Amino acid sequence: MSDRDRGPRFRRVSQPRGDGRAGKAGNRKSPRGRGSARNGRREAGADEPAILYGWHTVTTALANPRRTIRRLLLTENAARRLADENIDTRIIPEIVRPATIDQRLGPDAVHQGLLAEADPLPSPDIDTLAQEGIVLVLDQITDPHNVGAIMRSAAAFAVKAIVTTARHSPEATGVLAKSASGALELVPLVLVQNLARALTELNDRGFMTVGLDSAGGEDLAAIPLRQPLALVLGAEGKGLRQLTRETCSAVARLDMPGDIKSLNVSNAAVLALYIGASRLGLMR
Amino acid sequence: MSDRDRGPRFRRVSQPRGDGRAGKAGNRKSPRGRGSARNGRREAGADEPAILYGWHTVTTALANPRRTIRRLLLTENAARRLADENIDTRIIPEIVRPATIDQRLGPDAVHQGLLAEADPLPSPDIDTLAQEGIVLVLDQITDPHNVGAIMRSAAAFAVKAIVTTARHSPEATGVLAKSASGALELVPLVLVQNLARALTELNDRGFMTVGLDSAGGEDLAAIPLRQPLALVLGAEGKGLRQLTRETCSAVARLDMPGDIKSLNVSNAAVLALYIGASRLGLMR
Repeated sequence: MSDRDRGPRFRRVSQPRGDGRAGKAGNRKSPRGRGSARNGRREAGADEPAILYGWHTVTTALANPRRTIRRLLLTENAARRLADENIDTRIIPEIVRPATIDQRLGPDAVHQGLLAEADPLPSPDIDTLAQEGIVLVLDQITDPHNVGAIMRSAAAFAVKAIVTTARHSPEATGVLAKSASGALELVPLVLVQNLARALTELNDRGFMTVGLDSAGGEDLAAIPLRQPLALVLGAEGKGLRQLTRETCSAVARLDMPGDIKSLNVSNAAVLALYIGASRLGLMR
Repeated sequence: MSDRDRGPRFRRVSQPRGDGRAGKAGNRKSPRGRGSARNGRREAGADEPAILYGWHTVTTALANPRRTIRRLLLTENAARRLADENIDTRIIPEIVRPATIDQRLGPDAVHQGLLAEADPLPSPDIDTLAQEGIVLVLDQITDPHNVGAIMRSAAAFAVKAIVTTARHSPEATGVLAKSASGALELVPLVLVQNLARALTELNDRGFMTVGLDSAGGEDLAAIPLRQPLALVLGAEGKGLRQLTRETCSAVARLDMPGDIKSLNVSNAAVLALYIGASRLGLMR
């Protein structure tokens, strides 16, 4: 586990949540309905706003009609630049001094004079996923920089969705969104409560579920892959949990010629995506 | 440029340094001797110690005979664990409370009770690099998490060396070393003062120097590669500097099927390494 894969900035879904949206889950077709991985269109972190900052992240969000913007803080410079580029702010922005955004985000955040508070995007159900292409499944990967980099790579490889149990605080969502460089608006995030159940649901829906693990029996590049494909990644150090591993239809390793045999998790993710997309003929 | 690609924690070599070691550069064979990229065995950041922390990072350093350890802070637990695993500490450790190391590193560093102050490893000259395999060249990539992840991937792909102008402060070296997960002991870091000159030197030594740039004329996977190969990566957002791009023997892009066309720099690095190593027959 990397040093940044810890810390208090995220929390995991540990129990069913009693908000109104969960109750809307009506059409359960599966006997696994109770406590199912399906969240009945409940929104990702619906109780807390997503904090988005930085030019690329905020303008991509403003361009996403599915994204509801609640509040927009802009410096005068940023407001002028948006006007110059004819970007619709959708709501009336609050013009603030840069220090106001600094104070909100801390000194290390490169916000470029833009901060938006937005509703999280809807989290689709697993049974709405198209039975084609690749999805990524993240098993307890929590560091927002890593998850953001993974989302960005997922968007680059036209991944259909990311399935995860990890929910991030508004602050961590800001870091994640910045690292994702706009990908948060492009790749649906499927939040589930129980990852093994979600994998079973993917298996039932015809997905080949391949766990990546250095102890995997075969090299990912050597096993026959098919669509729809779910690539399952675990946290660094800890790897896949036992139940996750057991629920995958295959467990594969990434063979590399050097003396170190494991990669940073976002590096492992992009490599698995490249190998998967290449072998499935999805590169163009 | 990512938000973490800034900040005050590194500095670049901007001028020749007047320390004693630089004076030892005796045997210059090149007419480019003055201000040459070759540093005459000057050590990487020789004036400042490398701060290493975390179980894997410190034990890998202790196992590296080329690494001089100056000071070793251990908690009682860490000292016991080292003794249990028969790991030679090489110098007499100072037993401290965990809070002492916390204070030194800040609250986010997962040090696991180990902190070493060590001499930086020697920085080899470019003209000592073997004319085979792959080297990575980093153009102004400064974020220590990214550089650490790149070093780890470099070790995984048996990269011969990393060439860079970036020098890191002791604190940033600690973060870099932790992210590198032991790779700092495995992959030689060639510190140069002028990257274009270093690339010219690589060209002269028969390297194919390929810059990665989203504006590159061809897909990396589509151009004929040969050994020795230097893969050149620029900072996110900024990309390769013009002189860097012009000095490369080829500039290639990484084609991907999705809506986002650029990756986190460490993700781009591992992908380029995989493509390069695969096409050069270096994967086994």
